[in-house]
Amino acid sequence: MSGTSELKIYNSLTSRKELFKPLQKNNVGIYVCGPTVYNKVHLGNCRTFISFDLIVRYLRHLGYNVRYVRNITDVGHLEDDSDDGEDRIAKKARLENIEPMEVVKKYSDDFHKTLRKFKVLPPNIEPTATGHIIEQIELIKKLIDSGFAYEVNGSVYFDIKKYCESYEYGILSNRKLEELLKNTRDLSGQSEKKEPFDFALWKKASKNHIMKWNSPWGQGFPGWHIECTAMSLKYLGNQFDIHGGGIDLKFPHHECEIAQGTALNSVPPVKTWMHTNMLTLNGKKMAKSTGNNILPEELFSGTNKNISEAFSPVVTRFFMMQAHYRNQLDISQDALNASKKGYQRLIKGYKFIDNLSSNYIGKSIFDVNEAISKFYYAMNDDFNTPVLIKELFEALKRIKGLSINKDFINKDDLKKLQNTFRVFLFDILGFEVVEDKNDTDEYLNKTVSLLIELRENARKNNDFKKADEIRENLLSIGIILKDNKNGTRFELK
Amino acid sequence: MSGTSELKIYNSLTSRKELFKPLQKNNVGIYVCGPTVYNKVHLGNCRTFISFDLIVRYLRHLGYNVRYVRNITDVGHLEDDSDDGEDRIAKKARLENIEPMEVVKKYSDDFHKTLRKFKVLPPNIEPTATGHIIEQIELIKKLIDSGFAYEVNGSVYFDIKKYCESYEYGILSNRKLEELLKNTRDLSGQSEKKEPFDFALWKKASKNHIMKWNSPWGQGFPGWHIECTAMSLKYLGNQFDIHGGGIDLKFPHHECEIAQGTALNSVPPVKTWMHTNMLTLNGKKMAKSTGNNILPEELFSGTNKNISEAFSPVVTRFFMMQAHYRNQLDISQDALNASKKGYQRLIKGYKFIDNLSSNYIGKSIFDVNEAISKFYYAMNDDFNTPVLIKELFEALKRIKGLSINKDFINKDDLKKLQNTFRVFLFDILGFEVVEDKNDTDEYLNKTVSLLIELRENARKNNDFKKADEIRENLLSIGIILKDNKNGTRFELK
Repeated sequence: MSGTSELKIYNSLTSRKELFKPLQKNNVGIYVCGPTVYNKVHLGNCRTFISFDLIVRYLRHLGYNVRYVRNITDVGHLEDDSDDGEDRIAKKARLENIEPMEVVKKYSDDFHKTLRKFKVLPPNIEPTATGHIIEQIELIKKLIDSGFAYEVNGSVYFDIKKYCESYEYGILSNRKLEELLKNTRDLSGQSEKKEPFDFALWKKASKNHIMKWNSPWGQGFPGWHIECTAMSLKYLGNQFDIHGGGIDLKFPHHECEIAQGTALNSVPPVKTWMHTNMLTLNGKKMAKSTGNNILPEELFSGTNKNISEAFSPVVTRFFMMQAHYRNQLDISQDALNASKKGYQRLIKGYKFIDNLSSNYIGKSIFDVNEAISKFYYAMNDDFNTPVLIKELFEALKRIKGLSINKDFINKDDLKKLQNTFRVFLFDILGFEVVEDKNDTDEYLNKTVSLLIELRENARKNNDFKKADEIRENLLSIGIILKDNKNGTRFELK
Repeated sequence: MSGTSELKIYNSLTSRKELFKPLQKNNVGIYVCGPTVYNKVHLGNCRTFISFDLIVRYLRHLGYNVRYVRNITDVGHLEDDSDDGEDRIAKKARLENIEPMEVVKKYSDDFHKTLRKFKVLPPNIEPTATGHIIEQIELIKKLIDSGFAYEVNGSVYFDIKKYCESYEYGILSNRKLEELLKNTRDLSGQSEKKEPFDFALWKKASKNHIMKWNSPWGQGFPGWHIECTAMSLKYLGNQFDIHGGGIDLKFPHHECEIAQGTALNSVPPVKTWMHTNMLTLNGKKMAKSTGNNILPEELFSGTNKNISEAFSPVVTRFFMMQAHYRNQLDISQDALNASKKGYQRLIKGYKFIDNLSSNYIGKSIFDVNEAISKFYYAMNDDFNTPVLIKELFEALKRIKGLSINKDFINKDDLKKLQNTFRVFLFDILGFEVVEDKNDTDEYLNKTVSLLIELRENARKNNDFKKADEIRENLLSIGIILKDNKNGTRFELK
């Protein structure tokens, strides 16, 4: 079904598009770094999860059996490795004066709710960092045993110099060790690490630290990077197909994952690294501190000063799909308005095609297979959704033009076309035909008002028979008219 | 606001209603045993979670700061302690040929989705068993150190005889040790346990066992009972206010929790034990094997042979609230139909009250405070929702009767009454006014049909001006009439 082209994916590790070949025929393992649940999910993060939702949906459509693992970071990673670096979740708990796991529950629920609105399908496994402390400890023990990690005062660090004796560090972000050394602030004497670029695998917990566990090195908590290594290797094996995440995670997080995985199993953990690009707002980086920021719920309700009109989740999703996941994308009221119109046009076009009928059995004027292969070509080119959407509109335009001629398409081709549109729009792109309840309510209000007006006019013309008829007809369908001094209102029975 | 009565709760431990006094003024800690996520959630389980949702909502309404912990059992507890007892989640994973954690994700999502439909609010913390392996190991170590548990061949068991030297075992389910001994099948020789009633804290994993963790006793997995002890004590302290669950968990699960908690901290872990009663279907116990079973989703869609009509989640919730949580409840089509009518009547009554207005400032004929105190009296009597609902209907009936007299209630009393109804119906009982989209769609279809008919009649009477007016008015509100040989249909713009 994928036409004549084959799927190519841009691999951040090699900086080029590569033909996608899963390690195990038909099975694809994919891991995406999930949210740290200490706050309401960021719209930029949503872009990442929506992008990988599209990617997983397309891989499944191609017939792959996909195991999609997306974690929840519920022991909040440190701002940095220094001793006063505070756990983000614990900090939030302290500020809100609740248990850290209450913070986790609150924001995990919020995260799931938001993604559901965006029509993001759940992953197959959603492991939590706190649910894999033992696994992390096991890996750290193994790293110490093989000399890639060392313990100091109850904390354990990854030894990058030692790693560089056997492997290369920095291959994903193209960093050289010498550069790293130059760029790292000199904290010698203050730090217990051998080298400033070594990173924490396990941190000793202070007496007041809330989230801590027993370990061979005393009470402490895991470093951020080892979490994802423990969870991805556990559920996908020592080497798996795709690892994804936001571009901001490339360094140090993903670089450290490569080092950990390679040191553990002498094999790079991931074949294809995929990174989604940033979402900016009105041309600038989003940041709470500057106020140039918007929450998903504020976008849906139109209650944020930066974008004061409400846009539905599906329009927002369409807006995101209009850009390629590797390109930076700027969100603004104007851009969303354009997307809203575009989305309505697309759905209208889909309905137009879906309502076409044909009994014609001759040759079609419209070349369905050509159109379909263009759709696949776009998607197979590193999931190029903007090109796909362009091709969908092209096809719609041509069909609309040709449809003046009744026999432009034969029965079978039409069926194929209708099915393809349905699959691409709903199964792959994750769109939906929205006729929301509020709209229907409004339509109902307006039509009943029209009937009330007609009754009013009949009365004025002394046509009381007609007026009563309208009232009774409405009553018979369960709508009760109530007259009072201010006019007539209605109630549903 | 709770009237003159005080909250009394039936304590399963003492078999009587007791005045509720939290251990810490204003703070209430409550733990409820959650589902084992290896299957779609059972309607009987839903009753338990809906009951505790009501209980937590009411405690919060009374002003308590409630920390509600409800766990997810994601390492499926064994059928029994024997060596071939298979983990339920692993078994399901083997049958479905997927990773156990995929089973967990699938059915956790299903569980949450179902409870959302029932308007069950999320707990504050929803810990998982696999997320607390370290905590469980710590407790088991402590039990071994204090002599309450013993290790045999990589498994650890709780020593009930040893426990009985200091404490009494069986206080919740009123079982005597001698009876237990008599009633337990004699597996001596086959079992590695000292006594047949000893229960597993940690089980050695066979080579093929999937879900296992390293421990001081080798690779294994925790027993079911220690999970809940680890999670409840971690988040609520060594002794907390309320522990709830289905009545089927009283023995052995809750009995074992008492023994574990008491042995660990020399204090009973729970002040008040609360148990919800069974839900039967058409007079018989629900069981998959007999076919006398129904899933929540089947109930909502009317696709189960036992109850073939569809009932909404809120009607089902109302149905459940019409029985006291400690009474057995039988679900059937007739009973649900009666509840559906009752619910409609209640909501209609609420709307009636909500639409009343008053400018009267004299003495009310209707004694609002008396009515309100009856509501509280019912709820304070061990959360007696059937009595509460009866009192709500009583009040509605009286108000309806009195309302013939315009000045039956003064302004302030009316406001208080309206507010109380809102609070009890929506905040406490968790009901909602449902006007679902399908209904609105149908109303809209019918009203537009009426307008089409009026237009048709105008045409027949050669009143083309009127006919066009109707068409144009509809168009102006976004409804397009399309005439064809079969008549006229409409489309939304």
